[in-house]
This record gives sequence, structure tokens and C-alpha cells, in this order.
Amino acid sequence: MDVTDMFSEMPFNDHLGIEVTEAADGRAVGHLELGTEHSSNPNRLVAHGGVAYALADTVGGAAVISANFTVTPTIDMRIDYLSPATGGRLDAEAEVVRNGDSVAAVDIEVTDESGTTVATARGTYKTGGGNGGSAWHSGDDEYTNGK
Amino acid sequence: MDVTDMFSEMPFNDHLGIEVTEAADGRAVGHLELGTEHSSNPNRLVAHGGVAYALADTVGGAAVISANFTVTPTIDMRIDYLSPATGGRLDAEAEVVRNGDSVAAVDIEVTDESGTTVATARGTYKTGGGNGGSAWHSGDDEYTNGK
Amino acid sequence: MDVTDMFSEMPFNDHLGIEVTEAADGRAVGHLELGTEHSSNPNRLVAHGGVAYALADTVGGAAVISANFTVTPTIDMRIDYLSPATGGRLDAEAEVVRNGDSVAAVDIEVTDESGTTVATARGTYKTGGGNGGSAWHSGDDEYTNGK
Amino acid sequence: MDVTDMFSEMPFNDHLGIEVTEAADGRAVGHLELGTEHSSNPNRLVAHGGVAYALADTVGGAAVISANFTVTPTIDMRIDYLSPATGGRLDAEAEVVRNGDSVAAVDIEVTDESGTTVATARGTYKTGGGNGGSAWHSGDDEYTNGK
Repeated sequence: MDVTDMFSEMPFNDHLGIEVTEAADGRAVGHLELGTEHSSNPNRLVAHGGVAYALADTVGGAAVISANFTVTPTIDMRIDYLSPATGGRLDAEAEVVRNGDSVAAVDIEVTDESGTTVATARGTYKTGGGNGGSAWHSGDDEYTNGK
Repeated sequence: MDVTDMFSEMPFNDHLGIEVTEAADGRAVGHLELGTEHSSNPNRLVAHGGVAYALADTVGGAAVISANFTVTPTIDMRIDYLSPATGGRLDAEAEVVRNGDSVAAVDIEVTDESGTTVATARGTYKTGGGNGGSAWHSGDDEYTNGK
Repeated sequence: MDVTDMFSEMPFNDHLGIEVTEAADGRAVGHLELGTEHSSNPNRLVAHGGVAYALADTVGGAAVISANFTVTPTIDMRIDYLSPATGGRLDAEAEVVRNGDSVAAVDIEVTDESGTTVATARGTYKTGGGNGGSAWHSGDDEYTNGK
Repeated sequence: MDVTDMFSEMPFNDHLGIEVTEAADGRAVGHLELGTEHSSNPNRLVAHGGVAYALADTVGGAAVISANFTVTPTIDMRIDYLSPATGGRLDAEAEVVRNGDSVAAVDIEVTDESGTTVATARGTYKTGGGNGGSAWHSGDDEYTNGK
């Protein structure tokens, strides 16, 4: 199973409609189609801040896992909202800007169909511990937060 | 309609099962019941990082709106994951720590049923512009990102 | 007095050796020469994390003020350290990526002489309130935190 | 040499007047006396944003090192400015809120003499790698960014 399949099989990504389409060499790409269920407004479609965040965190995690082939829980993330997302498709692209033994730094950009940047995010992810552990657990009880 | 009703009627909150139960004087409380749809793992329940984030952003926005009675888009937010969320209920409590003319700073803590802190978040929200505008728009096309 | 002069006259920038050399149209450039006083290590030169931060915050503020011609206090900032800074010159470049009525989002990159990225930062700055006020004060008691 | 001595001997802390007075069991306390050299304003004392940051990063690092007895470079930090610092003493208190095998999460609060919160910060620090390495280096070329 490749990385994109792994992310497509995650129940929360399925619940939100997030698809990861590329993940290789520390770079990943994904998207979702905005629907009424993503809105923070009952009268019209304006995406809740959690939608761009979930997409960013997912694609960021895919970028890290594509470089490290191990579980990569999110340690922390900052997101900045630059423009409202009001419909159509949201695309995200993530790039690992530093891949260390214990943590990776990742930049993510979320854009709408017009190419406008909706949000940018920067996250720190765990990159593994050599023994199949994660940031929060050791051993076989792995934790895949954010992915 | 009070603030808690407003947040319960947001389609994305409904999609995730987020309920805001208290919102007054710059403090808000909310929760969700974790189900399989929130998981990042198809084999067992480990909440995706976007779940705690969406809850935190929502309850943080409710705290700001309870103090300002106007739309309060999220400008930026940082979330730190401290422990995995593996089932039961997630509770969030938000408090406005600085409420200015243009922006508010909000602290949010997300806990699980055992009282363990799952995540903490700190966000900057817009507090209005005097003319019914929002951080990203002016006039009547208000934007309620993150709420 | 242009923007670069204003920043050069700030006592803390002088104390650290920070110079802002360009500031126009929402973009600014600055640098400092690393000396032993910037080190976190008494035995060799490894810049304290506060050095890259102070440079980033300063150049970020210069970028915002170059676009808005008003005081621009820092509301919040995140910095990520990607590589140690061990000597020579640190350069920073800042760009306003969103300039709104009340806040601006700014990206800053700090590099060393070899072109390696030492740190990246993202800040939210106040952009003014129309009445000469700042994020924290109103009227003539202006506050220029971070600049 | 105990942890507080180690931090007092760091040249940049000396340059800024930062003293760490307590550091034990994942909690640290420090302060500095604001002088004209800390100001961002040539006409009166308003501390540059880099001052509270440098204090926060230092005391945060002291808290982590007090819990782990090893070099603890800062990976990332967010600071929020809540009130201007206009004179007297700035005090900071840091607490490790999660201390993991590879990273620690730390909360820091900076207050002025009146007890007003000037800034809050949240940082992620490296907690070691088992082989004397740091977040950025391995082996004996240890890096002590932020401390």
C-alpha cells in the first residue's frame, strides 16, 4: 500500500472528503471538494477553519511519511487564514523543509480554485524513533495523530 | 438566538458532532463524542489531529463572540498535541486572555474523559471593525471562518 | 526619515547590531554580524535563539510599516529553527503576504552566509486603527513593540 | 555547575541582562531589568519584542534542561504579546507541560512588575537523542540554540 492509499483509508479523511494524490520524497499534494457540510454558516458556504486545517495537517503528514516511511504524529502546527474559502475545490501542497532524526518541519499552502491562498500552515512532526515508536508512545501501540 | 445555538447550527460543527454548551463573558465550553469517523486509523479509534483542532477553533471563536457580539474570524492558531485521543468524549474550554479593539488572544484546552490534556491551542481572532466587516471582508459579506 | 532609518535608530536594534537596509512596498531586508555577545555558548559562537528572532521580528515589522506607514506592533509570531547560526552574517528577508485593515501576515526567512536557512518565521502584526492607535493603546501613546 | 549558573554564563543572556534564578523539575524562573538598550523607541522605554522573546526562550530552555539534563535546542516557539513592557523588571516563569523522549512542550509567561502579563509563549524543544546529539547535530558537536 502506498502512502496516498494509506491516507485515503483514514476514516476522518473520508468523512471530510480529503484525498491525498501525491506523496513522495518529502512532498505531498491533496484536495477536497467543499460541500455544505464544510460550512460554518447555515445560509451559505464559507468553510469552517477546521476544514483547511484538517487538509493541511493531512497533506503535511503525508509529506513527512513519504520521506521517512514511519508514523509521523503532529507535534504542533500553526495555521494562518489569508482568505475565506467559499466553494469549489481546496488544494493543498506540503513540503518538508527540514527532515531531522527526531522531528521534521513542514510548510503547507492551501489554495482555492482561483489560485488564491486560503491558508498557510507550518507544522512540526515527529519523524520516528527507530523502534516503531511515536512521539507519544513506544513500541507497537503507535499513534498516528494528524494522519 | 444565543451564542451556543449559533454554533450548534453551523453545518461543519454538526458534521463533526461539536456542541457548544456555554459561551459568556469571554469564556466558552464545548465537546464532541469521538466516533469511528473521527479516527485517523481504520483499525481502531485514534482521533485525527483535525478533530481536536476543529473543536478548539470552534470553542475559541465562541469565547470571542461571547465577549464582542460580532463575527470573529480566526486569524491564526497554534495547536500542540500532548496526548492521543482514543475514545469517549473530548471537552474543550476557551478563555479570552486579551480582548482588544481589533484582535483577541484566546487560550483553549482540550481534555479527554480522564481529564488528560489532549491538546492546547492559542489563537488570534478578529474582534470586529466597527462597520460590520470582518478580517477579510467589509460590509455585509461577513466571513465567519473558524466558527 | 525613511523606514530603514527609523529601524536603525531603535536602541535594541543598535544593541544587537541589527540593520534594516531595505523597506518598501511590504518587503524588507536586514542583517546583523554575529559576534561573541550573540552566543548561547561561552566557548564558541552559536547564536542564541533570541538573535534570529529579534532580527526576524524587526525585519517583519519593517515590511509591514513600509506598506502601511503607521506603527505596527507584533501581535504574535512563530519561529522555527532549521539550522544553527555559528558565525558570520545573518540576513533576513520579510514579505507581507496579506495586508488587511487591521492585521497583516508576514513571512520571514533568516539565512546565513552560505545561504542556509537558519530560521523561518510567520508573524501577525497590527496594521493600525485609523486613529493613530496601536494594538494595545489608543491615541497618542503609541506602542511599537517588535520594531 | 547547576542549571542556573549555566544560563547565567551564556554571553547573549549576559548581553541582555537575563538571569535564571530557579530551574528544577521542569520548571524555571528568570528575569531582566529593562534599560534603554532594550527599547524599540529612541524617545522612551518600550521593550522591543525580541526582549520578551529572548527571556521566554531562555527560561523555557532552562525548564527543559532541568528535567532532562541534556542540551535542549528550541525547535519552534510562538509568542503572543498581550501588553507593552515599559520599564522595571520583566519576570518569566516556564513549565514543561509534556516531556517526551524526543520533544518537550513548554508554557512560558512573562509579566511586568505590576503583575500584568506582557507575553505568553509556547515552545517545542528537543529533549535529546540518547547519543549526546541535538535536534540539528549528532555526536559531540552539540548545538544549544535558544539557551
